[in-house]
Amino acid sequence: MAVYTEVSDEALTAFLTAYEIGGLLSYKGIAEGVENTNFFLHTTAGSYILTLYEKRVREDDLPFFLNLMAHLARRGLACPQPVRNRDGAALGRLCGRPAVIVSFLDGVSVKHPGVHHCRALGGALARLHAAGSDFGMVRENNLSVGAWRGLFAQAGAQADSVAPGLAERIRGDLAVLEAGWPRGLPGGVIHADLFTDNVFFIGDDLSGLIDFYFACTDAFAYDLAICLNAWCFEADGRFHRDMAGALIAGYEAVRPLAPAEVAALPILCRGAALRFLLTRLVDWLNVPPGALVQPKDPREYDRRLSFHRTARDARDYGRAG
Amino acid sequence: MAVYTEVSDEALTAFLTAYEIGGLLSYKGIAEGVENTNFFLHTTAGSYILTLYEKRVREDDLPFFLNLMAHLARRGLACPQPVRNRDGAALGRLCGRPAVIVSFLDGVSVKHPGVHHCRALGGALARLHAAGSDFGMVRENNLSVGAWRGLFAQAGAQADSVAPGLAERIRGDLAVLEAGWPRGLPGGVIHADLFTDNVFFIGDDLSGLIDFYFACTDAFAYDLAICLNAWCFEADGRFHRDMAGALIAGYEAVRPLAPAEVAALPILCRGAALRFLLTRLVDWLNVPPGALVQPKDPREYDRRLSFHRTARDARDYGRAG
Repeated sequence: MAVYTEVSDEALTAFLTAYEIGGLLSYKGIAEGVENTNFFLHTTAGSYILTLYEKRVREDDLPFFLNLMAHLARRGLACPQPVRNRDGAALGRLCGRPAVIVSFLDGVSVKHPGVHHCRALGGALARLHAAGSDFGMVRENNLSVGAWRGLFAQAGAQADSVAPGLAERIRGDLAVLEAGWPRGLPGGVIHADLFTDNVFFIGDDLSGLIDFYFACTDAFAYDLAICLNAWCFEADGRFHRDMAGALIAGYEAVRPLAPAEVAALPILCRGAALRFLLTRLVDWLNVPPGALVQPKDPREYDRRLSFHRTARDARDYGRAG
Repeated sequence: MAVYTEVSDEALTAFLTAYEIGGLLSYKGIAEGVENTNFFLHTTAGSYILTLYEKRVREDDLPFFLNLMAHLARRGLACPQPVRNRDGAALGRLCGRPAVIVSFLDGVSVKHPGVHHCRALGGALARLHAAGSDFGMVRENNLSVGAWRGLFAQAGAQADSVAPGLAERIRGDLAVLEAGWPRGLPGGVIHADLFTDNVFFIGDDLSGLIDFYFACTDAFAYDLAICLNAWCFEADGRFHRDMAGALIAGYEAVRPLAPAEVAALPILCRGAALRFLLTRLVDWLNVPPGALVQPKDPREYDRRLSFHRTARDARDYGRAG
């Protein structure tokens, strides 16, 4: 939650001359976004978000993310749409950083989602998967099963200082997941980070999806498993079966799951939980001095894993039948 | 530059039911404002700023600030206008903090002002003084000459660690200023903190004034002296006589200075510089651990004081005649 790069009125005014979005009326640094610097931008042509990409985003990946957002918006998905400059480029440079202007989306992130939010999320996720089906670019999921042992190597030695027995539990999960990770499931573009912060509602209606900077090419059902983890558990590990059932039903109302996806749901949920446990653990143990962002507690995902380890099939996640 | 208090969608939605500004569309924490937490707020009725007052603002002072903004806006000054709730109250309570919604003002703060910005500022300052002339409330300036010795007592012992000889220089200024501080100058409501951050421009036009949380009742020419310090010097102490002349001329085009104000300008400028030197010195020497805000360098005002100490009359500040 921070503005990492200050942008002066002079620098911004010069930057905007490359765009056809009118004159500058106002801009304010936004105190959200863990990885990048974001400004609310108001011009005579409308409202926008200006994003400056900081160190953790690989510049080589930006064309994938920006083209994807443009593609999804063209397909009617409510997501930020990159604004092209007079030369037709979406990616610019401001204050030494790669920088992009996208359309502003109204909507509010829900802190405590309920059943109807989860149902709406499921539908939006399935529509995202459908809208991305003819997207031409590919980006490997570099935080999937092949990356987890490497993440564990970075953090494993100190894992037990975070929660007793954690290293042993992770070793067990890794063995099961590496041996049994499903291959060949239906796939394509997935969001891969659809936490509550990245889903907007206006009143009861889902109004948009944001933050496509983990999007990649992977199994659709793995995206659903990420959402089940992110939306249907309390921090203390309590599972909301009704919300999970609504999320899956909302998804299947748009895109029914294949039998192989249904069967894989428990292991995909376990893998998704381990992915967030491991990245949070690495961040937790490596807070840089003077950090502006509070790292997220990895133990929440340790608690979720204890549920996933005992789940037998999709019915345990509230799926009917 | 920080959001000190997190506000959930549930808390904000409940808070907004007391207001007649339509349904919530969006809100974003703004990474500016040193003292308070600010959100950009978009509803079906328009755009607003939501402010939560943090510890450093005295709650007893809030009615003065809010009534003043309402009064000035009624008099046609472009400044944030507090929104009253259904009970007619501008001051509410949100997440345990006093909270206010004000109208959103477009405009951009100028990092490097020029002569024409200063001329526009002068005019706006004089219009502010005129618009406040029939405001019924009084708030003593608790950061004027009577407070400076107390501030020096908090920081003086360590002053020389900030700049060699600083304590001795401040002692000299204090003696001169306490002995010669002008009384009985024309006065009324002053802004008292009209730095570049608090003045908005759209293109070349001044579009509004914000942040009235140091406003008080004092000599008008002291407000002008604060602006001369804030706008017409470089950080290294270099003085822009042309900008100062434009600021004064812009002011006098709306409200000509009385001879006593003209005569007092050098000592008022010296006092204004000492006021910001002292508060910055106290903040500089007392950065709390984990502070989210970088304190401002007090030495900039030490350098300005060396100019003010040698100034003989208003002509040294670029005033014609």
